[in-house]
Amino acid sequence: MTKKEKVYGISKWALDTPCLVIEEEILGHNIKEMQNYLNKLGKQLRPHAKTHKCSRIAQKQIEAGAIGICVAKVSEAEGLVKAGLRNILITSPVVTDYKISRLLDLLLLDRELMVVVDNAANAQKLNEAACQRSVRLNVLIDLDPGMGRTGVSFEQALALGKIVHRLPGLNLKGIQCYAGQVQHIPSFNERSQASLNWLKQAAEVFRQFQKEGLPAEIFTGSGTGTAEIDWQIPELTDLQVGSYTLMDTEYLGIGSAEDPQRFKKFPPALTLLSTVISANHPGFVTIDAGLKSIYHHGGIPQVVFPANEGWRYEWRGDEHGMIHFAGADQKLKLGEVVELIVSHCDPTVNLFDEFYVIRDGRVIDLWPIDLRGKCQ
Amino acid sequence: MTKKEKVYGISKWALDTPCLVIEEEILGHNIKEMQNYLNKLGKQLRPHAKTHKCSRIAQKQIEAGAIGICVAKVSEAEGLVKAGLRNILITSPVVTDYKISRLLDLLLLDRELMVVVDNAANAQKLNEAACQRSVRLNVLIDLDPGMGRTGVSFEQALALGKIVHRLPGLNLKGIQCYAGQVQHIPSFNERSQASLNWLKQAAEVFRQFQKEGLPAEIFTGSGTGTAEIDWQIPELTDLQVGSYTLMDTEYLGIGSAEDPQRFKKFPPALTLLSTVISANHPGFVTIDAGLKSIYHHGGIPQVVFPANEGWRYEWRGDEHGMIHFAGADQKLKLGEVVELIVSHCDPTVNLFDEFYVIRDGRVIDLWPIDLRGKCQ
Repeated sequence: MTKKEKVYGISKWALDTPCLVIEEEILGHNIKEMQNYLNKLGKQLRPHAKTHKCSRIAQKQIEAGAIGICVAKVSEAEGLVKAGLRNILITSPVVTDYKISRLLDLLLLDRELMVVVDNAANAQKLNEAACQRSVRLNVLIDLDPGMGRTGVSFEQALALGKIVHRLPGLNLKGIQCYAGQVQHIPSFNERSQASLNWLKQAAEVFRQFQKEGLPAEIFTGSGTGTAEIDWQIPELTDLQVGSYTLMDTEYLGIGSAEDPQRFKKFPPALTLLSTVISANHPGFVTIDAGLKSIYHHGGIPQVVFPANEGWRYEWRGDEHGMIHFAGADQKLKLGEVVELIVSHCDPTVNLFDEFYVIRDGRVIDLWPIDLRGKCQ
Repeated sequence: MTKKEKVYGISKWALDTPCLVIEEEILGHNIKEMQNYLNKLGKQLRPHAKTHKCSRIAQKQIEAGAIGICVAKVSEAEGLVKAGLRNILITSPVVTDYKISRLLDLLLLDRELMVVVDNAANAQKLNEAACQRSVRLNVLIDLDPGMGRTGVSFEQALALGKIVHRLPGLNLKGIQCYAGQVQHIPSFNERSQASLNWLKQAAEVFRQFQKEGLPAEIFTGSGTGTAEIDWQIPELTDLQVGSYTLMDTEYLGIGSAEDPQRFKKFPPALTLLSTVISANHPGFVTIDAGLKSIYHHGGIPQVVFPANEGWRYEWRGDEHGMIHFAGADQKLKLGEVVELIVSHCDPTVNLFDEFYVIRDGRVIDLWPIDLRGKCQ
């Protein structure tokens, strides 16, 4: 009996904890909602798999209409290609000989594989490796929107584009500009201004590429926090949204077009279940989810079941968390299960090997988090 | 060709990054040092595997003289038993039917298996399950040293001990008292006072057990931060140290008996290697290790290679980190590898699937982190 067969049909409240559960209906809604929303605005989706680390979800995004999938690392790309996915974009530079060699191995399986470049020496190196194998690697120029993380400055982008365009082993396709630092700005207006400020400069680079006769087929960027904003950039071709699928308290707490306090368009599909393992105090209990189950980042996880105003999760070491009650008459008993929205979904997902998929309160599937731990 | 065969003998600087490396000699030193230190003081070691999550290291600890291994979760105990280890202590309460059933399955393989109890109803439940299977489960009373995480209060410990002792399916062995909250107090003197304060109260409970004729064979507790202190408690039988094996910046930064600023007895055996993937700025570079490779907890990771005073790591999202230089003339080139001591070893180890084991700068082994992700 496989693990999936063992858990099929059981109530989500009977699952061994801590574990991650996905409400299938909400996930399906979120995938469709983002796809339809952007398609209506004339944009494509190239969702980022770094959030869910799950080829099954990536497949659903493709089936819904996404034109490709983004990943952060070569090992993630390998995982997706192994699972049958194609049109993968690696959104960070690939610089070492070993990784470049693996990249070119992958290119044989995924002819549309793309990688970003932010440095002329790196472009030369990729070119030499590609020429040696008589292949052409698809490349985007990565632009730095003032973050200083990866990317070339707007001023130097055209020059780098020209260098890449001249290299016979590289196939220039356009640009990437991802402004990660603006995604969680709480105020929708401030976030709009910041994001449009950077993307307008990137769009100007894109137009320079066109004017100079450089290939400019793709201008990819944006994220879940700015998708409702960035579609206004005419040059932007596709959006690299990721967290909209699963959501977390960090994203739920930012303002949106509809609500200045809350981002409601994409309800949380992902939650974590955890069990009370110690209950010797009046105001709080200890649960079995600590640093190793809920990644310590992105604010505070939210208790959604039992639904009580003011209950508060607190990390208490590697293995434990606390639930603090709001009132003296409130309690949880030993063995009771609580449900939490995690604070930052991406690194939390990366702590687990599988999602339990839930419909009508029961397990209907088990999806491997097959890119889990693929940080190389 | 296995992965181990592929990497055997190569320089650690040629490894694909990010990755965790262990200096075999330092690990061996740390394991021996702690064992000898405590044995000379008449104490036993029951090291905690939650730190390294690696049955190979647990095995080395046993070979060096440890009397058993601690784990936090049932799934970790299963992993160790599967790897051939015995005498496992689960240091958190096990409360659900499903986990109790697995615990009793394990007891058939490890007759010395122990679990802690901090609640009479939980003790009853364990007893019923054990009686139903006609086995006796070894149990310690978990005492709460003012942390409020798990454990019964000192005042109620004797009463719970008496309840457990009367239950035919449980075999009371003694007490556990782990004061996690004092392990990282920077001042050695303050830490000494705090730890001895709690453990003296636990020792009083232990003496009550003896006076009342309750089994009091084991009094286990302590951690890496207080091992140099807690041996002074005559009743303490064994110490649950974990981090001394690998070490991290959080522990290296606390004062010790020899040095008020630094904990030098156990040098860092564990480091993380990461590669520069973007280098477009004068004062800093971007490396391939972010939240998903270095757990965001326990302070700041320390750059140890290249050895430059004042270089500073900064988390920059899920996939990236920055190295900030101290001087304008300093730099790192694209593709260069840096070595870091991680900030908090336990949850960082839990992000990886294996340790590369290094001797004289070359890979001599690959140890699976076989308890990785076992948070249930």
